[in-house]
Amino acid sequence: MKKTDGGVTLPSGFTASAFAAGIKKAGRNDMALLYSKTPCHAAGTFTSNLVKAAPVIWDRDLIQEGNDINAVVVNSGVANACTGQEGCGYCKDTAEAAAGLLGVSYKNVLVASTGVIGRQLPMDKITEGVKSLVPLLADGRQAANDAACAIMTTDTVSKETAYTFTLDGKECAIAGMSKGSGMINPKMCTMLAFITTDAAISREMLQTALSEVVEDTFNMISVDGDTSTNDTCVVLANGLAGNTEITEKNEDYDTFKEVLFAVSKDLAMMMAADGEGASCLFEVTVKGAENVKQAKNLAMSVISSNLTKAAIFGHDANWGRIICAMGYSGEIFDPDKVDLTFISEAGSLQILENGLDTGYSEELATKILSEKKITALIDLKQGGCEATAWGCDLTFKYVSINADYRS
Amino acid sequence: MKKTDGGVTLPSGFTASAFAAGIKKAGRNDMALLYSKTPCHAAGTFTSNLVKAAPVIWDRDLIQEGNDINAVVVNSGVANACTGQEGCGYCKDTAEAAAGLLGVSYKNVLVASTGVIGRQLPMDKITEGVKSLVPLLADGRQAANDAACAIMTTDTVSKETAYTFTLDGKECAIAGMSKGSGMINPKMCTMLAFITTDAAISREMLQTALSEVVEDTFNMISVDGDTSTNDTCVVLANGLAGNTEITEKNEDYDTFKEVLFAVSKDLAMMMAADGEGASCLFEVTVKGAENVKQAKNLAMSVISSNLTKAAIFGHDANWGRIICAMGYSGEIFDPDKVDLTFISEAGSLQILENGLDTGYSEELATKILSEKKITALIDLKQGGCEATAWGCDLTFKYVSINADYRS
Repeated sequence: MKKTDGGVTLPSGFTASAFAAGIKKAGRNDMALLYSKTPCHAAGTFTSNLVKAAPVIWDRDLIQEGNDINAVVVNSGVANACTGQEGCGYCKDTAEAAAGLLGVSYKNVLVASTGVIGRQLPMDKITEGVKSLVPLLADGRQAANDAACAIMTTDTVSKETAYTFTLDGKECAIAGMSKGSGMINPKMCTMLAFITTDAAISREMLQTALSEVVEDTFNMISVDGDTSTNDTCVVLANGLAGNTEITEKNEDYDTFKEVLFAVSKDLAMMMAADGEGASCLFEVTVKGAENVKQAKNLAMSVISSNLTKAAIFGHDANWGRIICAMGYSGEIFDPDKVDLTFISEAGSLQILENGLDTGYSEELATKILSEKKITALIDLKQGGCEATAWGCDLTFKYVSINADYRS
Repeated sequence: MKKTDGGVTLPSGFTASAFAAGIKKAGRNDMALLYSKTPCHAAGTFTSNLVKAAPVIWDRDLIQEGNDINAVVVNSGVANACTGQEGCGYCKDTAEAAAGLLGVSYKNVLVASTGVIGRQLPMDKITEGVKSLVPLLADGRQAANDAACAIMTTDTVSKETAYTFTLDGKECAIAGMSKGSGMINPKMCTMLAFITTDAAISREMLQTALSEVVEDTFNMISVDGDTSTNDTCVVLANGLAGNTEITEKNEDYDTFKEVLFAVSKDLAMMMAADGEGASCLFEVTVKGAENVKQAKNLAMSVISSNLTKAAIFGHDANWGRIICAMGYSGEIFDPDKVDLTFISEAGSLQILENGLDTGYSEELATKILSEKKITALIDLKQGGCEATAWGCDLTFKYVSINADYRS
């Protein structure tokens, strides 16, 4: 497996385009199209929020019915959530508009939306947008990046990653793009993520791999504890790499899953680091746990604590808040065994040993906590399992962004 | 029942005092003593956080053993949490110091602490503090207020309430003081609350009444989702009103519980309104629910949503975030039936009807959301149950307070 510069157009046969349809402020790209002429096996994971946006229901149903997928139409600006029957109809209208131009059925077209909840899609602009997107489809690096930028809302950077690898002698690639900055606390998957691959893999194995990988990547990040109505992660596999199709859990499956994990983890970490208003990526690893569930719940509880996140923003080694967040996680552990170490590019410093303050240097702690990526390593010393969660600090800017979002 | 100006010294036989022991910045009162010469039946509820502060364990054990209580020693500045065996020993030392001066056993003295986690109590200052507090004990209005102020940390106002009522012809009173502003998401009870009464009631009935009342008051507020290590709510009943002791669930019990509920609700709402950095009290009532648990979980999910709280700070009727928070609460409901109305002193405005935007005036909504107390009334139209939760908005000041807390 080799990490490489590239986006969703890196795997063979995938093209992408972006367009400013005028859904958001004038001139900013707000629609993207992802297309593979070769039909793709598709797998998806979606929000666990009871209130599901219309495009989530549309995509979930198409994928569950086992339809091959050729295209995904994405818009930012309006989430098409809480829009009733009218909003559901607009998903079909959008898919039909794209399907007509691409020569496929509307059942081969996924749609995705992100933005303000409760507004109806401006269908005239969406239809015009689709018309403009089709002739712009291209397979280069720029087209992938344009698409990744067009799906952003409060994101400050686009999020892309790509890897190449080999399956029975054939060169394969998996690449992905995602958006997500606020309302990030995925319970099934995160805001919007689109992953492409030219590896040949059956629909069942693709879904299995995605479902397993999502648990340890997208489901382990939190920006604000708010699980979105629109969370969608879709993988499209068109098989053009020419490898023998993966149809069972064998060595090739393991290789594929390893790369899919790397792509998903990269995208998840990029989203956490770009959390609304964030000044740093905050990584929490819990090791020495009795089981993975315990490690995950403890790591997620720390990463989600407003008080801990505000302390990280203040470069303050206020470890009491970390122990407090572990304590209310619902998991049982022995507080008197806990070791805690802060790690960043500026160094490593043990803060707690067996639940008690080590008498560490506050000055050095503040230095370590002033970097762009900060890791809290928690050792429960109770077992051999571990898990990692990713979040960010809580800043003035988070409040500012979310107090003013619609104005 | 009659609300009256007063604090914990209003019920007969209770005295209080406050002192600047130098635990916090010089000159600020940081210790309080609450005392009844007549031994009190005591009931308590404590944090559900696995990591419990030493004084929480001390008080819980004394109350569970059935000891009568004469005094409570409280300090702010240091939480005495995550302090190991040494911290536990200091609880006994503090109780013994007070007991010796008051002529009671250390088993009749509760202790409570609030402040920074992980530091040991400065026992020289605590012991000197106790010595100074005893001769200062007084029964007037001022003494109660001094005590209420001395237990504050990031609180901006002291929190006291008092009611008088009649039990079989005898004038009774219940009064309370509390502190709490951050790390507020009580799972059993809130930060620190002390309630006094001169009503005669058995220990068992006192605990039953408190446990029932806490569920609908202190356990229904959240400032930041962080359940403290120190949450403690204690009621002391010295029986001096002379009523026939309440020993079963009869009419007198109902009267007593009604007043205890009023005292607890007042204190809980004061804590939510004084949430760290808060600019307003945010009240969420869910009605038309199938059962109370559903109504409570939905109300708490909305009150705890960072995105919703930031929108309230921005006076923005961003109702999508409210529906979103309901959706990830884990409760099942029909989003297409939901009505939502915002209410404040500036008026009342229906925002959603059957899950869809009513086309309301954004200008009027902003006006309503600019008051000091804002209510979101959510009607599920599925049943006859309801619940109310109290929180506050998420502001720049919350971040500022918690990024700088220890410096």
